[in-house]
Amino acid sequence: MGPIKKKVHINVDLGEGYGNFKCGPDDELIPLIDHANVACGFHAGDPLIMQETVRVCKQHNIAIGAHPGLPDIQGFGRREIKMSPEELTAMVRYQVGALKAFLEAEGVPLHHVKPHGVLYGMMYRDEAVCRAVYAGVPKGVPVFGLAGTYHEKVAKELGLPFVAELYGDVKYNADKTLVIDRKKKAWTSDETKKHISSQIENSSVTTVTGEDIELPVGDHNVSLCCHSDSPGAVQIVMAARELVDGFNKKHGYV
Amino acid sequence: MGPIKKKVHINVDLGEGYGNFKCGPDDELIPLIDHANVACGFHAGDPLIMQETVRVCKQHNIAIGAHPGLPDIQGFGRREIKMSPEELTAMVRYQVGALKAFLEAEGVPLHHVKPHGVLYGMMYRDEAVCRAVYAGVPKGVPVFGLAGTYHEKVAKELGLPFVAELYGDVKYNADKTLVIDRKKKAWTSDETKKHISSQIENSSVTTVTGEDIELPVGDHNVSLCCHSDSPGAVQIVMAARELVDGFNKKHGYV
Amino acid sequence: MGPIKKKVHINVDLGEGYGNFKCGPDDELIPLIDHANVACGFHAGDPLIMQETVRVCKQHNIAIGAHPGLPDIQGFGRREIKMSPEELTAMVRYQVGALKAFLEAEGVPLHHVKPHGVLYGMMYRDEAVCRAVYAGVPKGVPVFGLAGTYHEKVAKELGLPFVAELYGDVKYNADKTLVIDRKKKAWTSDETKKHISSQIENSSVTTVTGEDIELPVGDHNVSLCCHSDSPGAVQIVMAARELVDGFNKKHGYV
Amino acid sequence: MGPIKKKVHINVDLGEGYGNFKCGPDDELIPLIDHANVACGFHAGDPLIMQETVRVCKQHNIAIGAHPGLPDIQGFGRREIKMSPEELTAMVRYQVGALKAFLEAEGVPLHHVKPHGVLYGMMYRDEAVCRAVYAGVPKGVPVFGLAGTYHEKVAKELGLPFVAELYGDVKYNADKTLVIDRKKKAWTSDETKKHISSQIENSSVTTVTGEDIELPVGDHNVSLCCHSDSPGAVQIVMAARELVDGFNKKHGYV
Repeated sequence: MGPIKKKVHINVDLGEGYGNFKCGPDDELIPLIDHANVACGFHAGDPLIMQETVRVCKQHNIAIGAHPGLPDIQGFGRREIKMSPEELTAMVRYQVGALKAFLEAEGVPLHHVKPHGVLYGMMYRDEAVCRAVYAGVPKGVPVFGLAGTYHEKVAKELGLPFVAELYGDVKYNADKTLVIDRKKKAWTSDETKKHISSQIENSSVTTVTGEDIELPVGDHNVSLCCHSDSPGAVQIVMAARELVDGFNKKHGYV
Repeated sequence: MGPIKKKVHINVDLGEGYGNFKCGPDDELIPLIDHANVACGFHAGDPLIMQETVRVCKQHNIAIGAHPGLPDIQGFGRREIKMSPEELTAMVRYQVGALKAFLEAEGVPLHHVKPHGVLYGMMYRDEAVCRAVYAGVPKGVPVFGLAGTYHEKVAKELGLPFVAELYGDVKYNADKTLVIDRKKKAWTSDETKKHISSQIENSSVTTVTGEDIELPVGDHNVSLCCHSDSPGAVQIVMAARELVDGFNKKHGYV
Repeated sequence: MGPIKKKVHINVDLGEGYGNFKCGPDDELIPLIDHANVACGFHAGDPLIMQETVRVCKQHNIAIGAHPGLPDIQGFGRREIKMSPEELTAMVRYQVGALKAFLEAEGVPLHHVKPHGVLYGMMYRDEAVCRAVYAGVPKGVPVFGLAGTYHEKVAKELGLPFVAELYGDVKYNADKTLVIDRKKKAWTSDETKKHISSQIENSSVTTVTGEDIELPVGDHNVSLCCHSDSPGAVQIVMAARELVDGFNKKHGYV
Repeated sequence: MGPIKKKVHINVDLGEGYGNFKCGPDDELIPLIDHANVACGFHAGDPLIMQETVRVCKQHNIAIGAHPGLPDIQGFGRREIKMSPEELTAMVRYQVGALKAFLEAEGVPLHHVKPHGVLYGMMYRDEAVCRAVYAGVPKGVPVFGLAGTYHEKVAKELGLPFVAELYGDVKYNADKTLVIDRKKKAWTSDETKKHISSQIENSSVTTVTGEDIELPVGDHNVSLCCHSDSPGAVQIVMAARELVDGFNKKHGYV
């Protein structure tokens, strides 16, 4: 398939603590990334954490997106909940609006929307869920998703700009979807590097069941997702940063 | 003191159900009022209810404000919670932003912000709480509050337009503050009419302890609050509407 | 099929308010029923409501059971949530234990456990869910469920006494399961009476799709469920009480 | 004042994670302690965590108590909430009952009840709050509290056995109450040892404002509390264990 055709960015989910509970090492990760997906209080995050996360991202000049999830702090947005399309749309609208209030207070724009956890997966498996979620995204705001799935198809339909995601620390199924666990396992730096290199240099990846599959990224803008709640998250993102910077330089992507 | 010097409006708290739980007879009340205070999901309301409430208010051309409350559905925002100033500001910003998302989707502006329940009372009793809450209100958006209390003083300090509230179905203490119960008691139409008439015609009211006090409304815009969760809410608001319309007509307030 | 072979009782879900939010007319229903299913705080109910509900039931000498639901007040336990078997067991154990504390304080025994809403439906559709839920029921405590489904099969396996439920105000599918709506519609007294009569006199019912099906109640104890949040709940339960009393008398069931 | 007159035990709050969120290093702490205070789902903990915590405590033969808190996961039970006495009693009863279900499933008894966080503080400052909370404790179950405060007085009144607590990693105010922060600061081992030694060897402590005060422990059973969410919790508890073991041995307390 050849290498990715545009500059590759890195995105990380941030602000996923809750009250006194910490999640990832946000302060160490923020200087390493391009795009922040900020939790909006439904699967994680609370108003104080959102406010602080937006401020730190702004200091480091990181583009900030909303990261809406299912209403389930206890399950961290990783337990499937059957909601009506109207509920899904309203729930996304609510969360994105809440984040926008903190962005407006800091004078920075909303860069994108990326749904969280099992909601993201429900969307690429169920077109109606995808359409309902995207219906809650403000017009013209880019959505991050998986190329070749309903994410891409429905974004196009609704006229939302689409950014194709690659995954630095999540395995793929043979159907190009992701293997989601409620609790994350540790990855080595070497595993991570091999997993990322293959994706950005060859637009392909070895799946959890051993096949090599092509990733249909096409001409889309690209953002590589790494998780802040993975064990060893900082090492994973540092490895990703090095690879991605080298790749972008080699290909003259600015 | 003489009559209120400007047109008197009527405001009601709306959208205060939660999931399947109903609160007031919103559909009957909306055609009777001028200003809606829409619950934002913390003390009541949820995304679906907010969306529907905004739509119905828009159909009736009602001015829509945010009604942020303490994070306590079970207590309906009527149990005092000690929060830091930073938490209060962030919590208000979050809720107002969430409501704005529904307003933007319907193309209507945010008219005002009115804090809910015990938070409203904490604000007129504690200047620091008042300042922290108002710090979460977007610049230039009017706040509804009690004239002669920290509500008015802090709004002036922060440059927020101030609308003086009168209360159609809540008794006053001798210090011009309100008598808040976690559960509301029934009022007769006659009690309500006498209570409102005195306020709008004489800018004074008989307190819960029997004194007549002056209400320092001054030159402010005025909105009379009635509650949607009071027993007999529709009758109370109909009585208020009749009185207020007559008053505005008599005084030539358009 | 002939009539039900044992005395028929009536059960109702009670204590399904939340904080200031009311649900059904519990005080009117309690004198009319035999078995109360008391919400345990996850889909509805809170500690204060549970305490009051247990006290009123005790005054009327009603047998009290636990009514555990999915952790979702906003969805009233009617939105499916995918939880692991361990979570389901722990969640049921927690809720039943909480109710038992109020029963112990009043000196009354736990009579039964009846899962609520969509959890009840997930159990008759998915044997693993049913087993996980029943694993959280204290040994020897009867469970209420649908005869001929996993409810009955798994109860037998685990040695839990089984009480067969009939439904006074819910329609059946052709596979003997129930038609659950997130919001209930109104039933007339006549519809209700016909629906109940057929079940207790003939052990059969006309399904939502028009077929007549047999209800495999066998020799089980029987409890007829009516809902407190149905529109017209009191009329429905009064009609059910009259029919059931007549039936029990006619057949000499004491 | 002389040394403590009975064997000194060590208690720690456990199971204070929530869903995927971790709190303290429970698995390392459990082998080091005598008494576990298990969070009951209101300020922290969830059914799955409670179940696992009870199991691990049982394996290590640790006495297990309930640790009920205010209903506020986001604030970790450290934000004061004004609740009515009836609500407090019902809330405690609910939480203790929930924990008992897990104890009964494992065949271990409820050893004690220790209220959490700001609720504990509200109780020693406000006799009515203390009475309401203790009213929710099952008869005959010991309560852990501060000697010389309402904790002790009200326990005596209600006939609840009282265990006097000392604090290994919390400073005291001059009035013998505790200095509670919503977020904990780090203590050195030396600070901790000095703080504990003084308490157990001399029944006195140096307060946050520098005075030495006597601790009115009297003839009560004694349990020294250390926190699992303190930075360096394992080191603190190891230091406490060493000191306490040495003290008990020296005084022949078995």
